[in-house]
Amino acid sequence: MTSVSTSPATDRTAPSPVLECARRARGAAEALAPLPRAAKDAALLAVADALESRAAEIVEANAGDVARARETGTSESVVDRLTLTPERVRAMASDVRDVVALPDPVGEVVRGSTLPNGIDLRQVRVPLGVVGIVYEARPNVTVDAAALCVKSGNAVLLRGSSSAYASNRALVAVVRDAVAGAGLPADAVQLVPGESRDSVRELMRARGLVDVLIPRGGASLIRTVVEESTVPVIETGTGNCHVYVDAGADLRMALDILLNSKAQRPSVCNAAETLLVHEDIAAEFLPPALAALAGAGVTVHGDERVVAAAEAAGTSARVVPATAEDWETEYLSYDIAAAVVPSLDAAVAHIREWSSGHTEAIVTSSQSSARRFTQLVDSTTVAVNASTRFTDGSEFGFGAEIGISTQKLHARGPMGLPEMTSTKYVVTGDGHVRGGVPGS
Amino acid sequence: MTSVSTSPATDRTAPSPVLECARRARGAAEALAPLPRAAKDAALLAVADALESRAAEIVEANAGDVARARETGTSESVVDRLTLTPERVRAMASDVRDVVALPDPVGEVVRGSTLPNGIDLRQVRVPLGVVGIVYEARPNVTVDAAALCVKSGNAVLLRGSSSAYASNRALVAVVRDAVAGAGLPADAVQLVPGESRDSVRELMRARGLVDVLIPRGGASLIRTVVEESTVPVIETGTGNCHVYVDAGADLRMALDILLNSKAQRPSVCNAAETLLVHEDIAAEFLPPALAALAGAGVTVHGDERVVAAAEAAGTSARVVPATAEDWETEYLSYDIAAAVVPSLDAAVAHIREWSSGHTEAIVTSSQSSARRFTQLVDSTTVAVNASTRFTDGSEFGFGAEIGISTQKLHARGPMGLPEMTSTKYVVTGDGHVRGGVPGS
Repeated sequence: MTSVSTSPATDRTAPSPVLECARRARGAAEALAPLPRAAKDAALLAVADALESRAAEIVEANAGDVARARETGTSESVVDRLTLTPERVRAMASDVRDVVALPDPVGEVVRGSTLPNGIDLRQVRVPLGVVGIVYEARPNVTVDAAALCVKSGNAVLLRGSSSAYASNRALVAVVRDAVAGAGLPADAVQLVPGESRDSVRELMRARGLVDVLIPRGGASLIRTVVEESTVPVIETGTGNCHVYVDAGADLRMALDILLNSKAQRPSVCNAAETLLVHEDIAAEFLPPALAALAGAGVTVHGDERVVAAAEAAGTSARVVPATAEDWETEYLSYDIAAAVVPSLDAAVAHIREWSSGHTEAIVTSSQSSARRFTQLVDSTTVAVNASTRFTDGSEFGFGAEIGISTQKLHARGPMGLPEMTSTKYVVTGDGHVRGGVPGS
Repeated sequence: MTSVSTSPATDRTAPSPVLECARRARGAAEALAPLPRAAKDAALLAVADALESRAAEIVEANAGDVARARETGTSESVVDRLTLTPERVRAMASDVRDVVALPDPVGEVVRGSTLPNGIDLRQVRVPLGVVGIVYEARPNVTVDAAALCVKSGNAVLLRGSSSAYASNRALVAVVRDAVAGAGLPADAVQLVPGESRDSVRELMRARGLVDVLIPRGGASLIRTVVEESTVPVIETGTGNCHVYVDAGADLRMALDILLNSKAQRPSVCNAAETLLVHEDIAAEFLPPALAALAGAGVTVHGDERVVAAAEAAGTSARVVPATAEDWETEYLSYDIAAAVVPSLDAAVAHIREWSSGHTEAIVTSSQSSARRFTQLVDSTTVAVNASTRFTDGSEFGFGAEIGISTQKLHARGPMGLPEMTSTKYVVTGDGHVRGGVPGS
């Protein structure tokens, strides 16, 4: 579809199995695009049923991955994320049925009008085409991403973690059989062959065959894809989120929002990683805040004033001095950086310098502070008197989430089904020409 | 703003003048983002006035570029595109006033709701930030792009053609003075220093400082940017547009749409480059079509059946045999490729294989053909019984156009002011937390 590509993807004799997948995906995408909702929903219901009826073979394949992970000394928390049980497979099926219930974004008329010359103009949603998803350990992403792509009329190329390869192969086999049984092309859902990094590299160069690549995972994976891909990328998920406690904030509210943002689930991208406190409220807020963070098992990486406040209040047991690196760290753990700032504008400047642009929260009683913070902070989500943890597709009512985009182009913040589409214009005339017919 | 960047742009000691520009642009963008419409409009009106009052110095600077172009043997048509006159400068000022009249996209609430937990959720339009535009000869793009960026709250880095460098420098000086005089940061509009290709290369690597790069110009420029940029790109403008004449089409309408699409202005991206004719209508349509194209000075690069039809009808004077290359060529001249196809689906398959995905038109009397073509053709614009030439921001009523995106991400088709924005979510609560406060 892209006229200016010179990448290997346009060399039609290239023998790469990844590009072969991508070509088959393009064919499947062309078949999926015009399908009505009913056909896609029927296929997804068949997928949900098949996941339940074939749970045993999925769990068996997964057991092999789990055994290999244990042999190679993988941490128990990662093993837990990898492990599938019959209950977890049933939960996947249930998630697929939730996707069935969502409206189909394809065909939605985004805008429409009759132009002065009488032409009818409509901008309608269409699928993106072929979506590549590169992700890490959790095999539930396999089914989740497949369901969201099929629902939005896209073919998907799944490139999961090599540690979950057997699980993903079993899951994709079940999904493909069900999709094909419902009359859709099986190649709408494909697992990218090969466990090596080469297959990711080939996907990244498949410009013209793959319409978008969505990396879901750690910062190093995302960095690689962003830097090296010639296929357009939607960058997801890195979250160095801030909580700023304004002068005159309600202290109880600030404490609750801080603890919830940091410690309710520290391993996710919308957890807070830095606390900024206005100096006018620092003496009052820091002692109970540091005590509460310590009580929740959180280590505070504080600037000089935070360390001094902790020493003065006798709550320095879990407070260590911060280095510049702390301001840009996404801990994803029971750690938080903390600084005292002289003003709201200084908090904004700190955020501009160090934030990953995911989510920043202000706790304030002042309407003008709320307004200024909201205007000046340029992140996917700005929260006023609410936890950073709300930045989430289900919390936002989207019903599903393919990831949280931290870029500005195409989609920003939690991505639901509409973000998995593009648009096209349909111009309908009655023999309309522009500026006359040459020679007439 | 981007946490995962490892590009030279994040090396804060890099001495490059391009990156220095980009850093100043980022500061200007932060100042522009919260500005209300009135402030931006006032600055743009000052720009329009200044263009008129300082037209002489602009025309003088331009005369140097024109003289150099003539010395180096540039073609007269390119020299014409480069040349500025007092009238043309006045036209630029008038275009800026047209931009003033357009609504400000920033601050528009794209969607909003109150969530079940009482949180108010709003998705609002915000500027993209720093926009880089790389373009070729026409200096009017300089002012046009600057006005559209300022109106949408973006800072712009302009990298025009080296052949127009003196003109662009004069124009940007006028714009910056006027912008600064109105109280906005002059660095909202900057000409990228340096006339060599290196400055384009540096722009392409300024990830984290430049939010989007928009190449406007020939296929080779666009290809370079798409292939090499780590800054997100919006691909514009390559148009290998098709006109398909369906069986049973109104012959007069088909002829008018064909001639208008091809020959009313052949040098633009929405001009038709390939004619596809259903075999059932070929014998009737081709003789008058080939005669009319010849009459308009168009050379037809035909497949075997077109060549045979031309010979049979005695209209082969301007018909030459097509090669495979013709199907993918954007002539931008009085040339058109032409083929006879056995069916609508064959026309769709031809378009899928060869089109650049810009605009394809069908001429048909059949409702089901119109519907099928519209569903199956995946281009920025599908025209039914209308010329391909309507794919245009002003024709679509957008009032301005920064380019025509031929990619699927972010923007597709003519881009108006809303396409120059991103969005952010604003979450407003009253102390809302998610799933409980740890330790409470």
